[in-house]
Amino acid sequence: MKVKIDGETREVRTLWMEGQKIRLIDQRRLPHRFEITTLENHKETAKAIKNMVMRGAGAIGVAGGYGIAQAALEAQHMSVKGFETYLFEAAERLRKTRPTAANLFHAIDRCMEASISGSVHERVRAIISEADSVAEDDLSASRRIGEYGCDLIDDGFRILTHCNAGALAFIDYGTALSPIRFAHMRGKQVFVFVDETRPRCQGARLTAWELEQEGIPYAVIVDNAAGYYMRQGEIDMVIVGADRVAANGDVANKIGTYEKAVVAKENRIPFYVAAPRMTFDLSCRNGDFIEIEERDPEEVRSMWGLNEEGKPSKVLISEEKTNIRNPAFDVTPAEFISGFITEVGILRPPYSDSIYEAFGSKEG
Amino acid sequence: MKVKIDGETREVRTLWMEGQKIRLIDQRRLPHRFEITTLENHKETAKAIKNMVMRGAGAIGVAGGYGIAQAALEAQHMSVKGFETYLFEAAERLRKTRPTAANLFHAIDRCMEASISGSVHERVRAIISEADSVAEDDLSASRRIGEYGCDLIDDGFRILTHCNAGALAFIDYGTALSPIRFAHMRGKQVFVFVDETRPRCQGARLTAWELEQEGIPYAVIVDNAAGYYMRQGEIDMVIVGADRVAANGDVANKIGTYEKAVVAKENRIPFYVAAPRMTFDLSCRNGDFIEIEERDPEEVRSMWGLNEEGKPSKVLISEEKTNIRNPAFDVTPAEFISGFITEVGILRPPYSDSIYEAFGSKEG
Repeated sequence: MKVKIDGETREVRTLWMEGQKIRLIDQRRLPHRFEITTLENHKETAKAIKNMVMRGAGAIGVAGGYGIAQAALEAQHMSVKGFETYLFEAAERLRKTRPTAANLFHAIDRCMEASISGSVHERVRAIISEADSVAEDDLSASRRIGEYGCDLIDDGFRILTHCNAGALAFIDYGTALSPIRFAHMRGKQVFVFVDETRPRCQGARLTAWELEQEGIPYAVIVDNAAGYYMRQGEIDMVIVGADRVAANGDVANKIGTYEKAVVAKENRIPFYVAAPRMTFDLSCRNGDFIEIEERDPEEVRSMWGLNEEGKPSKVLISEEKTNIRNPAFDVTPAEFISGFITEVGILRPPYSDSIYEAFGSKEG
Repeated sequence: MKVKIDGETREVRTLWMEGQKIRLIDQRRLPHRFEITTLENHKETAKAIKNMVMRGAGAIGVAGGYGIAQAALEAQHMSVKGFETYLFEAAERLRKTRPTAANLFHAIDRCMEASISGSVHERVRAIISEADSVAEDDLSASRRIGEYGCDLIDDGFRILTHCNAGALAFIDYGTALSPIRFAHMRGKQVFVFVDETRPRCQGARLTAWELEQEGIPYAVIVDNAAGYYMRQGEIDMVIVGADRVAANGDVANKIGTYEKAVVAKENRIPFYVAAPRMTFDLSCRNGDFIEIEERDPEEVRSMWGLNEEGKPSKVLISEEKTNIRNPAFDVTPAEFISGFITEVGILRPPYSDSIYEAFGSKEG
């Protein structure tokens, strides 16, 4: 992704490996501060995943894979038995950071499977290579999603997106933002309405920051205003990401996605979900089987930002005793979705067929 | 409305007159601080309306009427000519505070019309009496809305509301919250889902505070979560207020109302608008003729609250340069509305007929 640093525009990825170190954009203080942080070893990496120094399905998956690679390098002078024990413990530590993150488990499993035979030296090389593959797969899926999705975007389109399914949630490009990036690169005029996405405001903070860096025209709106612009005829298309897609096409995504989908349908606006193969869970029959996490009410009660002195600070919106409920995701039924933008092309209804056709045969 | 002060529960109105002074709840620091403020003269009252010490259609109308009464008392020892000039200037000053507030103009007009003949002493008495009538009309409309609306609420109902159309927006009871208050008073079990209502969070700050004081069970949710609870079958009914209702039943109300109405209809949840006669504008044919105010982007960019030291403070969510759009209201087409809860009963579709029947004949 493009990042303006000291007046110069550079290409930066969300995270990458340098020798034994992971380097990454610290997402906790964006958009107010852009900082590259270093994670020296797999323990620091586990901590960083837990503390959300990086977030987003793809990014934490890649970090998990690189975390295993770090552990392998840390144990490269041990005996085979010592190496195996060390690696097993590292995998456990990394798995525990975000208990619901499918991509994380998937990436860790891939790297662990690469380490089951050969000398320690061979195993270390196999693990590093597999961790790199996880990152490359993420990158190429994002890029292909951008290319396929770009064809859906006409010149002059005004597109609504929710939350951040951008480069910061993956290694680069993102999912929902990738088609928009490609459309912009290919000279199409696009304008992006960015839902601020309460409670954590990933739209206002991260998506707006990405678009600002890329020079793509946008406006942040409160989540309440999306319907207003749809009814005004000012939105041509909606693209969102996904946390999990069931076999029938029901989509779990950031809270609020369902409302946008319903109002888009009412206004006959195409509603697309951009997601790589990794996000499709064919073992999940439909949305009813997706458990919705309810998170800390503190996310709703307070807001962090820069105070008058420019320092990170938190303010209490409502009272400490105010009763709050905070579901983090919702399920959008497949009937509201015009298509899935994936790395193998656009999937159309009936989704039970098209999803199985695209990804079913690769299931274990 | 009930307010807990030093462990005791008292009945308090949003604002009232004591001699020449207006006393009122300072709404700017709620829910964190409950304070009764005094406005010594009509100039202070004008300033308080402008600075949103009180807000809400009814409350600022009543404040406008009492502001004229204050001006009359200030000028009671002047000549008729001096009195007239003083009053005219006061009315101008009060009108300028909130240029789009229909209730404000309406209340000022009523009080000014009461002052056109008789001695200065007689005029002063007539104005005070008219200002009291404005307040009493507001109060009785709210109460009757509560009584009619209460019949729509079954025991055990879970009700969604948006923004604050509560006691604080009027003199007492409110509009959307009045049926809920009456249902609670009459022993019905109710639970209220309170949209926080970005950008100004009147739901999280004011509606939650009112319900907390009354002991009515509630939960604040982010605006994004309303659809989730509707789809889960956890919401039986939606009640909102209105800023303006057109002759055909189209409703202008706080941004986000339209989205809730669309998603309620999709889930077959009754959607009611509670509003007094004053809010119906029969000269406005339909929602297309209602101009939507776009407000300061700062409302979206920043959030105020109590900082870690318990002091009122503001934090910047996104960057200063982030592009933001901030429409303050939206229009919900009449087709999404199950009924209007008014002081003369429940109005049902077709609204062009029922609204005209209820209020048309009283038009000038």
